[in-house]
Amino acid sequence: MTERSGARPRTGERPRTGDAFGELLRAAHAARTGRGPRPVLGSRDPVPVVEVVERDDGFISAAPADRYLAEPSAWPGADRAALDLCRGRVLDVGAGGGRIALALQERGLDVTALDVSPGAIDVCRERGVHRTVVGTVGAHDGEYDTFVLWCNNLGLLGGPAVAPGFLAALARLAAPGARVVAQGTNPYGGSGDPVHLAYQDRNRRRGRMPGHLTVRIRHRELATPWFDYLLCSPDELRDLLRGTRWRIADVDDSEPSRYTAVLRL
Amino acid sequence: MTERSGARPRTGERPRTGDAFGELLRAAHAARTGRGPRPVLGSRDPVPVVEVVERDDGFISAAPADRYLAEPSAWPGADRAALDLCRGRVLDVGAGGGRIALALQERGLDVTALDVSPGAIDVCRERGVHRTVVGTVGAHDGEYDTFVLWCNNLGLLGGPAVAPGFLAALARLAAPGARVVAQGTNPYGGSGDPVHLAYQDRNRRRGRMPGHLTVRIRHRELATPWFDYLLCSPDELRDLLRGTRWRIADVDDSEPSRYTAVLRL
Repeated sequence: MTERSGARPRTGERPRTGDAFGELLRAAHAARTGRGPRPVLGSRDPVPVVEVVERDDGFISAAPADRYLAEPSAWPGADRAALDLCRGRVLDVGAGGGRIALALQERGLDVTALDVSPGAIDVCRERGVHRTVVGTVGAHDGEYDTFVLWCNNLGLLGGPAVAPGFLAALARLAAPGARVVAQGTNPYGGSGDPVHLAYQDRNRRRGRMPGHLTVRIRHRELATPWFDYLLCSPDELRDLLRGTRWRIADVDDSEPSRYTAVLRL
Repeated sequence: MTERSGARPRTGERPRTGDAFGELLRAAHAARTGRGPRPVLGSRDPVPVVEVVERDDGFISAAPADRYLAEPSAWPGADRAALDLCRGRVLDVGAGGGRIALALQERGLDVTALDVSPGAIDVCRERGVHRTVVGTVGAHDGEYDTFVLWCNNLGLLGGPAVAPGFLAALARLAAPGARVVAQGTNPYGGSGDPVHLAYQDRNRRRGRMPGHLTVRIRHRELATPWFDYLLCSPDELRDLLRGTRWRIADVDDSEPSRYTAVLRL
């Protein structure tokens, strides 16, 4: 698909705003189980379901979505190890396809899967998660011993404007002695990709944290609203926690850029 | 990556116009050979290189790009069979990563790989294609016995406005007795996906052929210009050839939607 005869400048229409993430997970679940509509290429070969993430500088990335549904045996070792940090009543924040909730549920923990995506929560239910909620931590009620922000979901801190409210919401839902088990990406631990370094510089010029991403997920005709997602170093996380009820109790940063942090009240 | 705290409407910047297709192929070639920069996800796990195609109605699709580099043993049977239809001096139009050119070259044919993408032609060269040209059929000189429009590249006919000039350019380059071996997609043979049917209706309302796609390829920070790509049925192809020097000599439409057509002067 290469020779662009008749090419001319033209602007595309915008995708429709909707639950692109949920539809993506539904498709990945269908591909995994063989039930439900699966994507095809040229109406011919089944293709893996791919998550497309668009950043507000025009950068686009794409990676197979099946990782959202993978069994623990297929996880990186650090992710499996993080399961051991969870106890009691668990709130899985941004539960996605429910792989963490299912793994913890199988260990006998009392898990609630929370996600703003109705499609994601449908997939969680279909896969056997018992307790599910469509919504945000700010609008949720309950009492939990562990909050899980898995698979980079420390990014839900969003940035300095959003993080205090988000962390206060978790504190409000926290039982005495509660902890947050969170995975984040250190934006300074990567390969020095010039495109990402330029985005960090652009953020600095705008007075934002360098790892402050504004992105949306696209799936077929749908796009989520643009949302903020934060990559921060453990040191930056420490700064963000200042003035909140949370502090860093432990950080496992044995991997170069991904780390697991345990926060305590 | 799901809870969208702090979500608010915002418009992203446009990607930079450039050789997104060529850079995609370079990345897929690097992933296949293990040499050169490979994409990673969260600076951690290597991920397959994925081609992202955006349509001008906002629809986006994504599929692994490795198929552009696959060996004949991994091709669908109909594609392998189509190799037998090629003879003499071959012009591979829209050669991409050179998989067809390489396969024909190994059979002893005298193949020229033509692509508008400099990156695609670089990959062709690195993979061992001897004759390569960056450019379009309209700007190219030579004499050929076979023109190859592989892997849906009948789409390069673009539409009724572009097709006559494109076909005239091929006729100008044609040796006596030359043929076109072309693969196309019948837009009416698919699964009845409502999103695609709506796009066809939109085209009809605009006086375009139903299968007339306007798309661009996106890769990281780059996008190709928007270009036209035509899905047409064998009957519509016959109509498009009217008034040109080409006629359909044979169509293999044993698959439901993809077909191989041989055109002759």
